[in-house]
Amino acid sequence: MYTLLEARNLVEKHIQNLSIPENPPELYEPVRYILSLGGKRIRPALVILACDLFEGDVASALIPSIAIEVFHNFTLLHDDIMDRSERRRGSPTVHVKYNENVAILSGDVMSILASRLMNQAPGVVLNVVHEVFTHTAMQVCEGQQMDMNFEELPSVSEEDYLTMIELKTAVLIAASLKIGAILGGSSQRDAEDLYEFGRNLGLAFQLQDDLLDTYGDPAVTGKNVGTDIVDNKKTFLVIQALEAASDKQKEELAGWFARKDKDPKEKIKAVTAIFDSLNIRALTEKKIRNYYTQALSNLDHLNRPEERKTELYNFASFLTNRNR
Amino acid sequence: MYTLLEARNLVEKHIQNLSIPENPPELYEPVRYILSLGGKRIRPALVILACDLFEGDVASALIPSIAIEVFHNFTLLHDDIMDRSERRRGSPTVHVKYNENVAILSGDVMSILASRLMNQAPGVVLNVVHEVFTHTAMQVCEGQQMDMNFEELPSVSEEDYLTMIELKTAVLIAASLKIGAILGGSSQRDAEDLYEFGRNLGLAFQLQDDLLDTYGDPAVTGKNVGTDIVDNKKTFLVIQALEAASDKQKEELAGWFARKDKDPKEKIKAVTAIFDSLNIRALTEKKIRNYYTQALSNLDHLNRPEERKTELYNFASFLTNRNR
Repeated sequence: MYTLLEARNLVEKHIQNLSIPENPPELYEPVRYILSLGGKRIRPALVILACDLFEGDVASALIPSIAIEVFHNFTLLHDDIMDRSERRRGSPTVHVKYNENVAILSGDVMSILASRLMNQAPGVVLNVVHEVFTHTAMQVCEGQQMDMNFEELPSVSEEDYLTMIELKTAVLIAASLKIGAILGGSSQRDAEDLYEFGRNLGLAFQLQDDLLDTYGDPAVTGKNVGTDIVDNKKTFLVIQALEAASDKQKEELAGWFARKDKDPKEKIKAVTAIFDSLNIRALTEKKIRNYYTQALSNLDHLNRPEERKTELYNFASFLTNRNR
Repeated sequence: MYTLLEARNLVEKHIQNLSIPENPPELYEPVRYILSLGGKRIRPALVILACDLFEGDVASALIPSIAIEVFHNFTLLHDDIMDRSERRRGSPTVHVKYNENVAILSGDVMSILASRLMNQAPGVVLNVVHEVFTHTAMQVCEGQQMDMNFEELPSVSEEDYLTMIELKTAVLIAASLKIGAILGGSSQRDAEDLYEFGRNLGLAFQLQDDLLDTYGDPAVTGKNVGTDIVDNKKTFLVIQALEAASDKQKEELAGWFARKDKDPKEKIKAVTAIFDSLNIRALTEKKIRNYYTQALSNLDHLNRPEERKTELYNFASFLTNRNR
């Protein structure tokens, strides 16, 4: 039985050995570059763990798992263009290191490569696996579009925000598990349970991300505190704060969001103080705990021996309680 | 047996009825928009004709044929961003009508949609068809990258130029025929012959495009004459001219290409005069004829009754002798 670490090492080795064409170098070098920047490899590892949960042939799940990681990295590459992000995992983003046209086109070829790799799933499940993959991939685009739309809106409802992070983040984690399950020979019902487990976990994961941006320890996260606040991102924390705030606090928040010339440190401190006074941290932690509990109940429900589920329980706990 | 016109009408009807999600509208409206701009629908029609050539079930080839058209339109959408093109088929390009981020993301979702539609190919050939499709799609990206690279180069060899147009244009036409053949139940060898037919025809098609830009009748093509010359595009005509030119003519051409402030009309007239003096038109027409002859010989070689090939002979003639 694979542990999470073993699954991650397995996929990492295969990502490093992935055969990517050489020419033209302008097209394929950025593909190698972004895949070399690392990352937790959570999604492909989940494909492996889910396949293994059903005692499936892990070897046959390997290339499809890499397909999902290639797709995920393609979305990061294109999102970075759209969000004008300059850094990714401590290195320059592709459109900064190369240029925007190269970033568009190498992202395009990665998306196709992902689909081509997924085509190596065994014939008996190819159609089903590919439909889950492409349906999910379209949803991820929908989530990114919603995220961009939110930037232009004065306010966002909690419901819309949760839909956005579900599409942008949770469904790909869910689909990774579902695809792994199908490759492992699971029943339809078990595959759905695992999908729900992943969806709830993905929502918890993203909310934890929002939380860590404000309340994480930079020595642990390796990231600056408060970048979301500086960027006026409508995170779960902001949405909750605007909902709970007094008129005076709303005005104060709006003031901080309206002005870009203010000292970032002062802005982070002031907005965090408003969060604190409204108990936003505890509120967000409670929401995370709810999704986590839901995820555990999906896993409980799954018709597999408890000892085979151990790694997924561990993974859920790791993901939700992480401090980086 | 389908005629080209019937095949085009069939796919056109299905493109108009294609089910595309509604939300978020910012993502999917541009997809509907670019698909509504028309075009000759050559590629999907070729899928149908190739399938029909082998008396295959045309109904099962329909969705895969649409997949190729969706993919082709995705490449146009993203190429227009990269090339900063403002018009496409007489209408504003997507990045102009909406914005660049929307154009990137709606292109991304189209590429995935294409793959999802291709996944509806019948199970027995799904894996083979999808591999042809995704391999070809990656080649199209390679061609676009080469095309962009050429802009930065002082000169381009004929060989490199032909490789570029093969990748950017010819292989997708070839793959359309090959996929149609596979869906129609052809032998491997016949599918390859048809691929070669399409590849040669695609090369002839692109060279004809280069020729028409300079020597076409604007009343017939509906396009301005000489836009490639104004844009300093390294077309087949320019490459041939630079190869055949005297030192004095090379200098003269370089002078026209170096300066952007010159009167476009004067520039077109002068460069065309150099082409004329070097017999570039006849030279290009000869090259087109060579590819056309090659294509016909591929079709001759194909192990099918002559009367079933009629539409493909007609199509080859139409494509190569077109004046728009």
